Amino acid sequence: MSRLYAIILAGGSGTRLWPLSRQRSPKHLLNVAGYGDTTLLQDTIGRLRPRVPPERMIFLASQEFLSEVRRQAFEFLGRDADLCTFIGEPVGRNTAPAILLGAMVIAHRDPDGLVLAVPSDHVINDSGAFLEAVDRSLDAAGDGYIVTYGLVPTRPETGYGYILSGDRRGEVLAVERFEEKPDRERAEAFLREGRHYWNSGIFLFSAATIIEEASQFLPDLVGHLRRLSLESLDNLAEIYGDIDPVSIDYGIMERTHRAAVLPVKMEWSDVGSWDSLYEIAEKDGRGNVVRGEVIHIDSDGSFLMTGQRLMTAIGVKDVIAVDTDDAVLVCARGRSQEVREVIDRLEERGRSEHIEHRTVRKPWGSYTVLEPGDGYHVKRITVDPGQKLSLQAHRHRSEHWVVVAGTALATVGDRQVTLSANESVFIPVGEKHRLENPGRTLLELIEVQYGDVISEEDIVRFEDMYGRIGKKED
Amino acid sequence: MSRLYAIILAGGSGTRLWPLSRQRSPKHLLNVAGYGDTTLLQDTIGRLRPRVPPERMIFLASQEFLSEVRRQAFEFLGRDADLCTFIGEPVGRNTAPAILLGAMVIAHRDPDGLVLAVPSDHVINDSGAFLEAVDRSLDAAGDGYIVTYGLVPTRPETGYGYILSGDRRGEVLAVERFEEKPDRERAEAFLREGRHYWNSGIFLFSAATIIEEASQFLPDLVGHLRRLSLESLDNLAEIYGDIDPVSIDYGIMERTHRAAVLPVKMEWSDVGSWDSLYEIAEKDGRGNVVRGEVIHIDSDGSFLMTGQRLMTAIGVKDVIAVDTDDAVLVCARGRSQEVREVIDRLEERGRSEHIEHRTVRKPWGSYTVLEPGDGYHVKRITVDPGQKLSLQAHRHRSEHWVVVAGTALATVGDRQVTLSANESVFIPVGEKHRLENPGRTLLELIEVQYGDVISEEDIVRFEDMYGRIGKKED
Repeated sequence: MSRLYAIILAGGSGTRLWPLSRQRSPKHLLNVAGYGDTTLLQDTIGRLRPRVPPERMIFLASQEFLSEVRRQAFEFLGRDADLCTFIGEPVGRNTAPAILLGAMVIAHRDPDGLVLAVPSDHVINDSGAFLEAVDRSLDAAGDGYIVTYGLVPTRPETGYGYILSGDRRGEVLAVERFEEKPDRERAEAFLREGRHYWNSGIFLFSAATIIEEASQFLPDLVGHLRRLSLESLDNLAEIYGDIDPVSIDYGIMERTHRAAVLPVKMEWSDVGSWDSLYEIAEKDGRGNVVRGEVIHIDSDGSFLMTGQRLMTAIGVKDVIAVDTDDAVLVCARGRSQEVREVIDRLEERGRSEHIEHRTVRKPWGSYTVLEPGDGYHVKRITVDPGQKLSLQAHRHRSEHWVVVAGTALATVGDRQVTLSANESVFIPVGEKHRLENPGRTLLELIEVQYGDVISEEDIVRFEDMYGRIGKKED
Repeated sequence: MSRLYAIILAGGSGTRLWPLSRQRSPKHLLNVAGYGDTTLLQDTIGRLRPRVPPERMIFLASQEFLSEVRRQAFEFLGRDADLCTFIGEPVGRNTAPAILLGAMVIAHRDPDGLVLAVPSDHVINDSGAFLEAVDRSLDAAGDGYIVTYGLVPTRPETGYGYILSGDRRGEVLAVERFEEKPDRERAEAFLREGRHYWNSGIFLFSAATIIEEASQFLPDLVGHLRRLSLESLDNLAEIYGDIDPVSIDYGIMERTHRAAVLPVKMEWSDVGSWDSLYEIAEKDGRGNVVRGEVIHIDSDGSFLMTGQRLMTAIGVKDVIAVDTDDAVLVCARGRSQEVREVIDRLEERGRSEHIEHRTVRKPWGSYTVLEPGDGYHVKRITVDPGQKLSLQAHRHRSEHWVVVAGTALATVGDRQVTLSANESVFIPVGEKHRLENPGRTLLELIEVQYGDVISEEDIVRFEDMYGRIGKKED
């Protein structure tokens, strides 16, 4: 039996779940579903794990979020995450290049490997049904089909693409045609006819099959990828820049004769909007979905979600309310697609809330702006065990560090000092300094920055373990 | 002509404007109306000032809020506030004791004084109409009437008490009867009949008249107040404890034959709920009231208000959304009275959001909890020029102070250090310390508290300029 690998597509970005998702906090890296503490990416790992061991998981993430993807994998899998493969895409080139890149890495290791390609930003409420579908389609993939999973529609949804199925081919059905997102009338016809399925964007194929098909339909892409050193991937940046963006649907699925669809009944959502998340979420007796510390009185059909802060609601009907540390959304249900306009207005006004959260993830940990004061900033900084920030200096600000948990190794000029909780150190303007967590527990400190100009861009880096020398940010 | 004094009733507390008002942030001390930066109390001072100079303004506030009332008066009037009289009620005893106390203080200074008694938590959009009404009723008050202002109703409001007017007496009308808050049907009948007015709770009388009437109807109250040393008020606490609470309406107005009403047309609200504030607020073409940084798309009939954070709204209709630093309310318009139930639930759950804001006013300035961390708290502290905190110690926590604006004089054990911006000091557990602002500008500092137990109650006071020795809080 061929072995099963997974390509986990973790490259998305966007603000369709404003204010929870931000340009620098895409939804797959967030706890969107609100079950437990896991992110959509971690939910995806958990769903695959019964069939795909960590050493056969290949993560394709945009370079910007690679360290966060890795961090979340470690948080979820522990040391097993060391066995996974993490590939950072230097630039986004849509799904076909990412999937082919992953398939080539897999084929290089295991020419007979089967590959499950899954987005990491979907919600699937029933893992059992998903795994059963995978099991049922392994033979078809082994026989050279490119299997896609088609959700049995439960409503005339206009937000998804559809697959029109044809004749039976063993466990799967041939694909007659892919249909774009329909209007309401067509969606209702699709539902009546019973031969259309929602296109999940999840695929199963053998590495050899997808490379063959790509060689036929996307020869340029395959040509570029053939130049890759598949062991080290050290020329990836150079090659990726030459590749044209194209989706796997358009580039291969709509052209190949090997496409097949397996109808699946399970609660699935691509979480393209708050409304679509509402559809799939479990509701109380009056149709409310509630997440976080919410006190609500006499609500109906509403989606009430909050993070750290308290939300209170009275008599709301068909309302989506989502609260985060620095922004809140109140939206009529059915209109959450229009967050796009909100984002446009934020851009027009030169605001930054749509770009990132108050808490910003970094390769070494995170920082949270507690107070963007006038002439000073207060931040909470966390540094993961073993990590260190760059050796750096600031031209316009001094810094006061007060450790509140864990142990810090601080370099200030020529000195090195070890600080425990309740100890502090001062970094004068212009002084070279470095912050490191030499311990085994999380380092947490409060930083008071003081200066005429306070900006993330006021940084000169001298050494950096994350390759960021010369960069102003990240 | 007799001189006009004002008794400004600043004793209210409450949470009817949750989450903006809190038990320790009553609405008269807040910028509720959202015009400019002034609080309702300051709006009240501004409205009176053309007729009542500061030396004839008597503020009656609950002791708890007296320093904040004084601070707001200084902020608004500048040094002129030194001329005002500020009286702190040791306990709340409703309006009759407060008004009689004020009237006695005034009568002691000026036996012929006329007195305007005004709540400080109302919104009046038209100061000119208000002052004109005062001018028109001065003669009646001089003639011994207790004049109340009756708003000409513009809708069948069920949230206000009504006054049924009788025969004309010069500029004013006799009062036939006071009516409790009516049901809808009665309110409509009142509106049709045209002889009923909303009871504003604002009164004009001579000090002598109100004392005479109180002597007749509330002899016990007057008996107690006669024991007061009117110069120093130093026995106020002792006397006030013996007084029974009673409202001016029930205690005097509903019994006296000297009651009169002056009908007034002006936009007025007692701001008893968000709905009543919505009624009086200026609206855009689609009936929206918007305050603060709000981006809204296609909203109708909604009240959207935010403080520091960003609010976004899409397609909302007849919704009240109010955001503050630590809590948000989303409420169907017409149902804002039900915030009471929200407060009850908060109490049941042992939460504290309904008690105070993240920023807490103190006699010496304020503090804001920036981060209530695990094992530490981060606060921003402001100290007004010339003010100082108590000489104190904490049993369970150390403190790190970093000055970010102004100058601090810090006492730590036997040492005194002067700190400028960008300088810091450490206060070990158990060490006696004191913080003072010796400068002429606001002192602002960041405090990191570290310890096993972090509580406002962990304080031992040795000296205090605000008389709080032995008290755990405030």
